[in-house]
Amino acid sequence: MSQDPLVVFTPSGKRGRFPVGTPVLTAARKLGVDLDSVCGGRGICSKCQVAPSFGEFSKHGLTSREEALSDWNRVEARYDEKRGLKPGRRLGCQAEIRGDVVIDVPPESQVHRQIVRKAASARAIPMDPATRLYYVEVAEPDMHEPSGDLQRLETALRREWGIERLEADLSVMAGLQPTLRKGGWKVTAALYRDHAGGAHKLTALFPGFHEAGLYGLAIDLGSTTIAAHLTDLDTGAVIASSGLMNPQIRFGEDLMSRVSYAMMNPGGDQEMTRAVREAIDRLAVEIAGEAGIDPAHILELTFVCNPVMHHLLLGLDPVELGQAPFALATSESARLTARDLDLGQLRDAARVYVLPCIAGHVGADAAAVALSEEPGKSEDLVLMVDVGTNAEILLGDTSRVLACSSPTGPAFEGAQISSGQRAAPGAIEAIRIDPETKEPRFRVIGCELWSDEPGFLDEVGASGITGICGSGIIEAVAELRIAGLMDPSGLIGSAEQTGSARCVPEGRTHEYLIWDASAEGGPRITVTQGDIRAIQLAKSALYAGARLLMDERGVEKVDRVVLAGAFGAHISPRHAMVLGMIPDVPLDKVTSAGNAAGTGARIALCNIARRAEIERMVREITKVETAIEPRFQEHFVAANAIPHKTDAFPELSRLVTLPQVSFGAGADREGGRRRRRRG
Amino acid sequence: MSQDPLVVFTPSGKRGRFPVGTPVLTAARKLGVDLDSVCGGRGICSKCQVAPSFGEFSKHGLTSREEALSDWNRVEARYDEKRGLKPGRRLGCQAEIRGDVVIDVPPESQVHRQIVRKAASARAIPMDPATRLYYVEVAEPDMHEPSGDLQRLETALRREWGIERLEADLSVMAGLQPTLRKGGWKVTAALYRDHAGGAHKLTALFPGFHEAGLYGLAIDLGSTTIAAHLTDLDTGAVIASSGLMNPQIRFGEDLMSRVSYAMMNPGGDQEMTRAVREAIDRLAVEIAGEAGIDPAHILELTFVCNPVMHHLLLGLDPVELGQAPFALATSESARLTARDLDLGQLRDAARVYVLPCIAGHVGADAAAVALSEEPGKSEDLVLMVDVGTNAEILLGDTSRVLACSSPTGPAFEGAQISSGQRAAPGAIEAIRIDPETKEPRFRVIGCELWSDEPGFLDEVGASGITGICGSGIIEAVAELRIAGLMDPSGLIGSAEQTGSARCVPEGRTHEYLIWDASAEGGPRITVTQGDIRAIQLAKSALYAGARLLMDERGVEKVDRVVLAGAFGAHISPRHAMVLGMIPDVPLDKVTSAGNAAGTGARIALCNIARRAEIERMVREITKVETAIEPRFQEHFVAANAIPHKTDAFPELSRLVTLPQVSFGAGADREGGRRRRRRG
Repeated sequence: MSQDPLVVFTPSGKRGRFPVGTPVLTAARKLGVDLDSVCGGRGICSKCQVAPSFGEFSKHGLTSREEALSDWNRVEARYDEKRGLKPGRRLGCQAEIRGDVVIDVPPESQVHRQIVRKAASARAIPMDPATRLYYVEVAEPDMHEPSGDLQRLETALRREWGIERLEADLSVMAGLQPTLRKGGWKVTAALYRDHAGGAHKLTALFPGFHEAGLYGLAIDLGSTTIAAHLTDLDTGAVIASSGLMNPQIRFGEDLMSRVSYAMMNPGGDQEMTRAVREAIDRLAVEIAGEAGIDPAHILELTFVCNPVMHHLLLGLDPVELGQAPFALATSESARLTARDLDLGQLRDAARVYVLPCIAGHVGADAAAVALSEEPGKSEDLVLMVDVGTNAEILLGDTSRVLACSSPTGPAFEGAQISSGQRAAPGAIEAIRIDPETKEPRFRVIGCELWSDEPGFLDEVGASGITGICGSGIIEAVAELRIAGLMDPSGLIGSAEQTGSARCVPEGRTHEYLIWDASAEGGPRITVTQGDIRAIQLAKSALYAGARLLMDERGVEKVDRVVLAGAFGAHISPRHAMVLGMIPDVPLDKVTSAGNAAGTGARIALCNIARRAEIERMVREITKVETAIEPRFQEHFVAANAIPHKTDAFPELSRLVTLPQVSFGAGADREGGRRRRRRG
Repeated sequence: MSQDPLVVFTPSGKRGRFPVGTPVLTAARKLGVDLDSVCGGRGICSKCQVAPSFGEFSKHGLTSREEALSDWNRVEARYDEKRGLKPGRRLGCQAEIRGDVVIDVPPESQVHRQIVRKAASARAIPMDPATRLYYVEVAEPDMHEPSGDLQRLETALRREWGIERLEADLSVMAGLQPTLRKGGWKVTAALYRDHAGGAHKLTALFPGFHEAGLYGLAIDLGSTTIAAHLTDLDTGAVIASSGLMNPQIRFGEDLMSRVSYAMMNPGGDQEMTRAVREAIDRLAVEIAGEAGIDPAHILELTFVCNPVMHHLLLGLDPVELGQAPFALATSESARLTARDLDLGQLRDAARVYVLPCIAGHVGADAAAVALSEEPGKSEDLVLMVDVGTNAEILLGDTSRVLACSSPTGPAFEGAQISSGQRAAPGAIEAIRIDPETKEPRFRVIGCELWSDEPGFLDEVGASGITGICGSGIIEAVAELRIAGLMDPSGLIGSAEQTGSARCVPEGRTHEYLIWDASAEGGPRITVTQGDIRAIQLAKSALYAGARLLMDERGVEKVDRVVLAGAFGAHISPRHAMVLGMIPDVPLDKVTSAGNAAGTGARIALCNIARRAEIERMVREITKVETAIEPRFQEHFVAANAIPHKTDAFPELSRLVTLPQVSFGAGADREGGRRRRRRG
């Protein structure tokens, strides 16, 4: 008696014998091969495409193409005609096994496929979203066996997909009966079930086979900007990214002024909650419009944000976050619906996942960085810094991860800087000062040329240079130091002291003139003594936070530094080190993680196992509170100079020679005042 | 070595030995004795009161009061002073075991106590509500171990009450932080967990020990009226009952006109949904006001209603219920929140349970009757009838239960009756016609006297007799037949034919004059030929439904009849049988179940195991659809006469002698028309 044909699936290597006539999809399911299907084998969805190869392994000689699989059938022919099937491909639900065969499951037919994004933050996210589509044919109602339409849908989902428990949101229920009838009792159900398990939730129902796909929004909700990535929940591809200003800025530029606003104005927290929710709602519609999709096909949202934004998003008064002991209302992740957040432009039942906060000062944005960059899986000791209005700092390796937040203020973002502006076209983003001539050259956003290259002005225009952004001001301050125009205490010298006519008096101090188009009615861009003080305060806070974690960990140095955030992508590691923003490490050990918080939001959107992982990670992280730690103040004061302690930065001597200059006793007096204030 | 003291609890009989010094509450818990406690043994809640008795059983001679339990302590003394402790009572959490003792747990200290209501529908409902109170002391936040306030509450609930998983509604989360601080980290949590299991849901949080209790609303949502019973979730006591008209009446008096309104007017279903939800919201506030409680202490609602009201309550378009095959959107129970139903006057997180519908024409109201009256537990075959605008009919015994609905129309409720009115003061609710004199005597709602008793008119006043309600019109028609004023076809004879001057012409037919105060500007109350036709149609529909179930079951008779509904409570079984409303059974086998649907709603409110039971019962009930069943039409036509078939009512001959009269051929003609229409 001859044996049943042997079927081997690649790349999994899973194999088994099946009777002649078994559909490939059936064989794959029995073997637990990762082969997708939405329509349940009806030849509609094309998700189960496979690439058979023939003859290679049969003991009975070569199995020909004709002997291995059934002929191309009418369903496949129709599908090919309508939408095109790649050469060599078959539909797994249609092709039947006839003889020994090797069947390759191409990546796009795998449920848990990895999608590699070709962006700055290239990242392979294995797809395992909480929401999936299921095509079913539902039994029609029968007066003699009365049951609800929902119960017959449930029966179909159980029979065809093995789904045991179904729950339906009222808003979905309201459309259930017309949708079933419109689809002629054939519907595609979007079911949500996350890492917490439990019942499947029916979040949308589409008539017939739903071809338009499902989408998710990964949202990085910052104090200043709200950025969203519209993501295809099937492929993981980001199909549009967009952002807008956080409208809460009108209640206070930084977080603490918003907390104060809530404290001083009864109902102020609710005002801010409404404002941010409306903005998110608007952003969702805008981004869907840009991508040309229906907002009703957005079925999931993930949010990363700092604790204050987290509370204001959820409608929780952030007042406790403004005072010791900085108690969060909840430190766990939140699972909600769009309706819970009054996102009226989206489906009521669209699901929302808000990543957990780490502590009262260390938010879900830091958790998202941890999810994206995985400090706990690093063999060497890594320091991760996400700089925004606050800096979130993570330090760790496989043994332990620590986290804190440091109040850098908005100077690194170009705010509170005399010529500061947000990173936008016209902003100086890079600058070099010649140590000999003390003359600057720079580059502005929107133009590839340096200012001393031919054609620069033609392209930019004299009044097209509008200000200086975060990365620009950091480079400017560092370059002032390198060029000997500023002493270690941060004082800019006079024209006589420095020999540069660009050092001009400004009140009792001096400023450095980068660009002056005032004669033509354009801007005059300088670095003032006040700007340098703001940057000094910010960088001291950042450095002190990092040092505090290193103290807690009992180390004097770290192996590598990762700069996260949109800002981190543009910062020059060399200048950051000259400034003393980050501890000293070899320059090639400073990398940028791009928008790691946004990547974390995308990961949580695409993969529910990673949601479970970040929840576990956050519980295990050692939280360090900077506000109450006397050593933080000590580190802060000690970090004021640029660089504060040269012996702490041996790497620096390989990068630059910092001139020994001194333009006054201001730094000492300043340091003295600080110490007295602490006493 | 002497043994540990023996402790015996009554009434459970559970016993065990415990070391000297063990608190009685601890011993009870270890033995699984049903002894309540909300405060977890802190001497605050007084729920754990016990009544010790001494000495009766000790082998070592009598154990004196002093030897058996620890002395009355300061906590007990303070409690007694503040709120009073009954003589002989101790607090189980304070009294410690010293020697052998018998401890009685009085009913009010049992968690699963049975509460017997002293009402018409007296019913012992064992208490096992979904929502319970838990008093806890929560750890204060610690900057060095940052965790959310919610997580510390969760930890306290786990530690003190063994509660494993907690979920909090966003609306409760919003009040979490201020409540914890207001209560000095001592709070009472209201947790909801029903028969489906899963996580406990935090539905309310009260500062300190919450003494004001928790309440639930059992709501009978009828087409015409909405009735609510405000119930203490601790004791099961109904502390207020109230009702109001269903405002949907302005969209159509009966269900089918409301379905038509939804069909004809886009958005009409949503209009009706808004109207009924607003009414429920208003009713909740009114009833709370009557009882003097805070609506914020209402944490649960249960609803029973017919399928159309069910859909309109849930915001589902009822259009499918208006046409074959009468498909329900869902036939399962619904678990929701007050926010889902836009009940803005209640807490967002208050829980809503809507009982399951049986079929497209047999609603959750019929399910509630089944829950209350339990036909499936009856040893003899019982027919249950709940008469409203539709009649819900159940037939069953321990072997099987069948259900159908019959379109009686609103005549039984006094609607579509010339002098008809709702059951309210001034309505004639009972009537007798003397077979000799053909003179009527009657009783009106609001007066105990019959109209021929002395003092009746003094009490009621001539114009205080305002109309005739459902039970009144049924008695009137039956009495007309008994008195020989009406023939079996339903025709009223003329004054000449009957010898009664009260039979007066009305167009081409006659009416019977019951009361005439028109001379004084008061009402003139008659029973017209049209009234009799309306009652005939209604009773034929009801009888035909009952007969159809009997056919399905294969029986010619039932053992007993239960009349449910507020109407059922007032109907005279003898008259119902003369009218031919119900199949013939011995008169003592006809009982009233009072407002069984409302009782079902209260049972579901107080006991989650009964929720599971009704869900199972509803699945198991055999559903019979009257609308498509030719035999229903046959029974309907055959049931037109009064009584339709004398040989089918042997019991009747023991009750009354029905005169052989005939006043015309109208009944035959009517029957002939009907038969032709069916053909």
